[in-house]
Amino acid sequence: MYYPEPITKLIDSFMKLPGIGPKTAARLAFFVLNMKEEDVLDFAKALVNAKRDLGYCSVCGHITDQDPCVICKDERRDRSIICVVQDPKDVIAMEKMKEYNGLYHVLNGVISPMEGIGPEDINVPDLLKRLQDETIKEVILATNPNIEGEATAMYISRLLKPSGIRTTRIAHGLPVGGDLEYADEVTLSKAIEGRREL
Amino acid sequence: MYYPEPITKLIDSFMKLPGIGPKTAARLAFFVLNMKEEDVLDFAKALVNAKRDLGYCSVCGHITDQDPCVICKDERRDRSIICVVQDPKDVIAMEKMKEYNGLYHVLNGVISPMEGIGPEDINVPDLLKRLQDETIKEVILATNPNIEGEATAMYISRLLKPSGIRTTRIAHGLPVGGDLEYADEVTLSKAIEGRREL
Repeated sequence: MYYPEPITKLIDSFMKLPGIGPKTAARLAFFVLNMKEEDVLDFAKALVNAKRDLGYCSVCGHITDQDPCVICKDERRDRSIICVVQDPKDVIAMEKMKEYNGLYHVLNGVISPMEGIGPEDINVPDLLKRLQDETIKEVILATNPNIEGEATAMYISRLLKPSGIRTTRIAHGLPVGGDLEYADEVTLSKAIEGRREL
Repeated sequence: MYYPEPITKLIDSFMKLPGIGPKTAARLAFFVLNMKEEDVLDFAKALVNAKRDLGYCSVCGHITDQDPCVICKDERRDRSIICVVQDPKDVIAMEKMKEYNGLYHVLNGVISPMEGIGPEDINVPDLLKRLQDETIKEVILATNPNIEGEATAMYISRLLKPSGIRTTRIAHGLPVGGDLEYADEVTLSKAIEGRREL
């Protein structure tokens, strides 16, 4: 009502994004008005293309513009190990580390009774199917170290028990560069529990 | 390199917006992937339309999709008074107040020697032209109460002096609901200086 209609619509669109309230949305909309026309067109195209061209890998569930995804297709990767993560962003975090060369399995969710997400709502059946292939020797459960992530890891590890495949969980402990003094009790107790001989 | 290309492009576009770093951009891009296709198309259209259909009012400098803008065209408004503001967003703030019924003049900037913005870079000549129309009886200078805003107000008030048109500056003082104890010295001194008889 106070802004001309085209800008109201743009503000409304920005407000649909997470963490963006009316003030930020207005600031972003006015910024767009001062952007080069070319950049605005690129932005609009990027939105449409991302939505249209991206989907989930039918093998691992990672986000991809080709199926199977580049990681699943890559013959140089170690096909005997699968790292199970919650989210495509976790794959990126692992890849940035540059030390893991196995495959992934993206759950695209975690078991969360509070939000009504049960084991049947996450990408577990596909994982079980992949494990029937005898080349898989280890499954690393790399869900987040919080209640939902732990519950999901626990659930999957129980499912895999009968198969005899080695199932591991990423270590909990003090983050590198952290400070013992400021660590919370649970993390500290996990760090002690997981201590290793030198 | 880590993300499929369409999502990298979308992240890059989000990163061009002010206050959005790589992590937020990635979060927004992934959010877009999970939005309804219809909403994404609307977002893309809103971007292109806002950029294409909006311009500045040739009379007052406010942002508008028609020229002159709805405020300048509105015959029910008091055409004897002009409120000078820095930014289209300030017009909206004034309109939300619902107590001002005059016209506006948007400078689209303030004098700021630090950023190399001089009097010739802001929309002052158009203001002077409007004042030649004899219906204008008062100019309210409502630039922001900071160094640049004060300097701009001072500059314009000097320019208008010879014309004999009444030139006023919005009041400085304690914000309503504020607390004397927490007011800064400059605001407090302005509040005392601007005291009025009851």
